[in-house]
Amino acid sequence: MTPTPDSDIASILKEHRDSIDRLDAILVYTLAERFRRTKAVGEIKAANGLPPADPKREAHQIGRLQHLARSADLDPEFAAKVLNFIIAEVIRHHEQHRK
Amino acid sequence: MTPTPDSDIASILKEHRDSIDRLDAILVYTLAERFRRTKAVGEIKAANGLPPADPKREAHQIGRLQHLARSADLDPEFAAKVLNFIIAEVIRHHEQHRK
Repeated sequence: MTPTPDSDIASILKEHRDSIDRLDAILVYTLAERFRRTKAVGEIKAANGLPPADPKREAHQIGRLQHLARSADLDPEFAAKVLNFIIAEVIRHHEQHRK
Repeated sequence: MTPTPDSDIASILKEHRDSIDRLDAILVYTLAERFRRTKAVGEIKAANGLPPADPKREAHQIGRLQHLARSADLDPEFAAKVLNFIIAEVIRHHEQHRK
């Protein structure tokens, strides 16, 4: 890529960053909705003596996401890392609230 | 919460998990779109001798997300952790591709 005039760089960066900010809002609201659902699952599990983690379900989710990531042209390893992080945080959060 | 009959537990869990799977698809496609944008920002920065990380911009993003998280009734600390993880992964990924 050839250097861009300073006056243009700021406006191009701003356009991308405005998009990133909007996408981050989607991420936050989607995470909030997801968290509500995992909370409900956690409560059902706790009330019925089921363990909080479910390795089989988690492996299914990771596999499905890597497939989705490929179709979205996103690095599947990156997608799996992010989802693993979210799953681990959700489990940690639920375990903390269970105590 | 009182125990739920076994026959109902499976169908209630399935309903929540189907939602979680759909929400995960939103997350993957949104991350893919976000990643495209951060990649473009990274390329502009590299072509113009700007550093890959921008602590001021990142602090602004985290602050904004914690505000959004509160309005979505999501734990702001959880939202910040997820975004910090995504930002760190994005920087790591871009630095790897720069080498």
